[in-house]
Amino acid sequence: MNSLDGKYRPYPPIALPGRTWPDRVIAHPPIWCSVDLRDGNQALIQPLGIDAKVEFFSLLVGIGFKEIEIGFPAASETEYAFVRRLIEENRIPDDVTVQVLVQAREHLIHKTFEALAGVKRAIVHLYNSTSSVQRRVVFRKDRKEIIDIAVEGARLVQQSAAALADTDVLFQYSPESFTGTELDFAVQICEAVADVWQPSRERKIIINLPATVELSTPNIYADQIEWFCRNFDYRDASIISIHTHNDRGTGIAAAEFGLMAGGERIEGTLFGNGERTGNADIVTLALNMFSQGVAPGLDLANLPQIARIVARNNQIPIGARHPYAGDLVFTAFSGSHQDAIRKGLAARRVERAPLWEVPYLPIDPADIGRHYEPVVRINSQSGKGGVAYILEDHCGYQIPRDLQIEFSQIVQEICDETGKELTPSEIGEVFRAAYMPDEPFRLGNHETRCDVVNETTSLTCVIRQGDASREISGNGTGPLSALVNALREAFGFQLSVLDYHEHAIGEGQDACAISYAQCSVDGKPPRYGIGIHRSTEVATLISVISSVNLSIQGSDEAGEVERPRRIRQIEEQNNGAG
Amino acid sequence: MNSLDGKYRPYPPIALPGRTWPDRVIAHPPIWCSVDLRDGNQALIQPLGIDAKVEFFSLLVGIGFKEIEIGFPAASETEYAFVRRLIEENRIPDDVTVQVLVQAREHLIHKTFEALAGVKRAIVHLYNSTSSVQRRVVFRKDRKEIIDIAVEGARLVQQSAAALADTDVLFQYSPESFTGTELDFAVQICEAVADVWQPSRERKIIINLPATVELSTPNIYADQIEWFCRNFDYRDASIISIHTHNDRGTGIAAAEFGLMAGGERIEGTLFGNGERTGNADIVTLALNMFSQGVAPGLDLANLPQIARIVARNNQIPIGARHPYAGDLVFTAFSGSHQDAIRKGLAARRVERAPLWEVPYLPIDPADIGRHYEPVVRINSQSGKGGVAYILEDHCGYQIPRDLQIEFSQIVQEICDETGKELTPSEIGEVFRAAYMPDEPFRLGNHETRCDVVNETTSLTCVIRQGDASREISGNGTGPLSALVNALREAFGFQLSVLDYHEHAIGEGQDACAISYAQCSVDGKPPRYGIGIHRSTEVATLISVISSVNLSIQGSDEAGEVERPRRIRQIEEQNNGAG
Repeated sequence: MNSLDGKYRPYPPIALPGRTWPDRVIAHPPIWCSVDLRDGNQALIQPLGIDAKVEFFSLLVGIGFKEIEIGFPAASETEYAFVRRLIEENRIPDDVTVQVLVQAREHLIHKTFEALAGVKRAIVHLYNSTSSVQRRVVFRKDRKEIIDIAVEGARLVQQSAAALADTDVLFQYSPESFTGTELDFAVQICEAVADVWQPSRERKIIINLPATVELSTPNIYADQIEWFCRNFDYRDASIISIHTHNDRGTGIAAAEFGLMAGGERIEGTLFGNGERTGNADIVTLALNMFSQGVAPGLDLANLPQIARIVARNNQIPIGARHPYAGDLVFTAFSGSHQDAIRKGLAARRVERAPLWEVPYLPIDPADIGRHYEPVVRINSQSGKGGVAYILEDHCGYQIPRDLQIEFSQIVQEICDETGKELTPSEIGEVFRAAYMPDEPFRLGNHETRCDVVNETTSLTCVIRQGDASREISGNGTGPLSALVNALREAFGFQLSVLDYHEHAIGEGQDACAISYAQCSVDGKPPRYGIGIHRSTEVATLISVISSVNLSIQGSDEAGEVERPRRIRQIEEQNNGAG
Repeated sequence: MNSLDGKYRPYPPIALPGRTWPDRVIAHPPIWCSVDLRDGNQALIQPLGIDAKVEFFSLLVGIGFKEIEIGFPAASETEYAFVRRLIEENRIPDDVTVQVLVQAREHLIHKTFEALAGVKRAIVHLYNSTSSVQRRVVFRKDRKEIIDIAVEGARLVQQSAAALADTDVLFQYSPESFTGTELDFAVQICEAVADVWQPSRERKIIINLPATVELSTPNIYADQIEWFCRNFDYRDASIISIHTHNDRGTGIAAAEFGLMAGGERIEGTLFGNGERTGNADIVTLALNMFSQGVAPGLDLANLPQIARIVARNNQIPIGARHPYAGDLVFTAFSGSHQDAIRKGLAARRVERAPLWEVPYLPIDPADIGRHYEPVVRINSQSGKGGVAYILEDHCGYQIPRDLQIEFSQIVQEICDETGKELTPSEIGEVFRAAYMPDEPFRLGNHETRCDVVNETTSLTCVIRQGDASREISGNGTGPLSALVNALREAFGFQLSVLDYHEHAIGEGQDACAISYAQCSVDGKPPRYGIGIHRSTEVATLISVISSVNLSIQGSDEAGEVERPRRIRQIEEQNNGAG
């Protein structure tokens, strides 16, 4: 593949002294023109039927497009019939202008104007191919003959428009394959067409400059647009329209640079459907602007629904990594990313600053109808931040930092061994199984009595161990210390509490409490235990017993923590499913 | 969605007087570093298992990567075990350098060097996050403290490398989230790391500048790279590495501009897999260079096979419109495109010029193991060019221009009515059914005798009509005119031949002939008929009878051409399948 032998050559650069576009920014949206129903539709394996086109047209109107290319009505009966249906059923809102494409050929132009009868306003988009290779191998005509085709087409369009009494016809011309056309010739042919149409500042024509095939790095397309704008005689009487394709994967960049270089209008499609590698993706372009504080003038607040409708009609799925719309683009797998996202979201809650600054999330997914929920998934790459985020987001547990580290290692080991990731529910289940073991001790019925004057709480409780039960009692400053004293006395433990937290989960009727107690038993390494219960007191007592249980369990195997039974079950299930 | 209220702000532009990158072109390939097994793998729904990683590594070596990031061995047991397996099983070729990622944290650095024991040469890729938002909300550290983390990590890496006696360790540093980092600070922290490592022109370090999240138009990334290269003290002692992501759909453009702005190395993945919207797509970058005559130094000659292996391992399909690799990117649906492609390919055969200049095909699909065959599909948008191409490419029929126009309308009507496209086989079948009808007349046995002196051929032949047969005879200059005279005399037709072509189809044993005869019968509009036979003479005679049959059939219904029975059957089948 590397023996090139003159088969390919570099695209020629543009001499553009004083180039200005790299210093420009996109500060307001362009005129958006959807070509989904033409350039997009013509490239489908299964072109849209008329009913599907009507649904798609409604979607485009709903999003806010004011210019919509609805087809090439002279090219097929389906396209013709669709144009007629939109007109005859009054489906075109007053503020929407439909656009139809036609080659510069007489019988096609006549058929096109036939299709338009009765519409209030329409853009007739005339084109002929102007590239050097097409002139040579396809048309076998010289520059002048190619200009004659365009001029003759422009005259016919003008005459036909004049004859269509009740329709306001706007004119658009594309030198097709613009990026394969010598720039001076592109300007020359566009000026010849404009000479016929005689546009003004008040009544502009649209000059559309397509990268019909993307042939160069996108900076060169920008150079071409800036060069064209500098040299085109009718610049003030025209709207320069940008139409890119994506053969080199840089169609979005080319469209953005086209605007920076002087373009005022974008032709593209939702999610970039279109010939070969597709057209400019208007959704991405609009949300790129949105992310910079520029209101794009299109309503993409329910992007998932838009994506569903488009994918269903086009019968082409939207890729998992498609910007903004893909299934995976608001998902972070890496532990450090998850940790940073969690902290960024937390800082945002605390700071209450309007500015969106969350690492690894270029925009707030909620702005386009997507959710935080799937942001974090846990796999073997996830660190403590991700696990902590899941427990907080999914279960409401705000676990202490040391416990985050310890628990994330448990999760990581499970993921490593099973080769799978865990769902948020599974992570909650593993967490409870790991830190709320019911062996050897379980809390049974109990009573507390509080002497307010002496600040003493006395506790009597049943501790169950397997089938056996034992009533123990103790006094303390509160239920926690009373239980600790009762356990010390009954079982002879050296027992101290090193850390303790409790917080509510949920609100109102459904609220319950979670307690975290870190105890040291008989000089062993301290262990956290948890308790979860609707009673804050019961949660506290269970957390102490959980901590004691873990210390005792851990001591069975030379200091190594034995995994609770439920964790082993989850591991086995995951292994089995793999 | 359009009420922004200060939630987003424009990315700040870079002051870069005398910017040079827009005038540069990519004239040679960069150092390619695959990060499929790290950045790509970490973002998979189902991370690769060790066997899958081994297969993927072999694929990367086979393509020609000389630098391959094989993981983050301190992050999980799977990654660690994979590094060990590559080393212990001697799977790393001598000319390939493996790279491992590690955060600037002591225990992770130790674990990383443990993983590397026994490898001949490795790049240790150290990083810490440097962006303003991460400093503030994630690390809560000021600039100096963040530099301290990097410097301490650099020292540890240096010490550990010195201790790894038999391994040649190369150093790489990434200021992670470079595009969220103030440029002066990025230079400062990279210089602090370089101060530790003390690189030279002979022993360079790699400075990798990641667009960890794509936050701006790609020209700004280029400005950042050019600014960095101008201001970095160790520019001559370092390799500047480009690492982009695709959050705004412009990751490929950013990577190309990064090279034009001074970058010498690309980190990316096959087909752009990676966190969220993915990494720079190395396949597209390499083929973009290839299309400009720059040998990329990677072997992508069998791209379909590479795509299959990657999609299977990543469990993420490659989109139909993905540049170069997608199913639809060498397919043209539009009639005018098909016509131009056909003429471009034909001109190429005739001109025998090395340069690839075929409209709508930016590269020759054959160069990457793809085929012309699916280039053209026929649907209701296809013009005569596409139909003619299919007939020539699939069946070998070089049909006259008038017949192209007539037949493309037949195809278009079938597509319009059924809403489907036709396969090449169906198009051939429709063509033969349309132009070689066997009603009312069929050619039976026949004899010709040629008098060479008088230049006269006499023909006697059986003409069958339903179950009836009739022997007719006539004389002419050859078999064709003899048959015409015989038909005139026997049936009283006014019959003349307006056009006639014949050519061979195929070669050698399998060759046969196709004839096209355009006849006028009794003043009706002339019709083309065809004959296909291993005998050139029989093909000629059948084509005349076909033409006569079509004229007679057409006259049954007030001048409108009746469709042959077989075409109606195909239409009905297609309707049924819809």
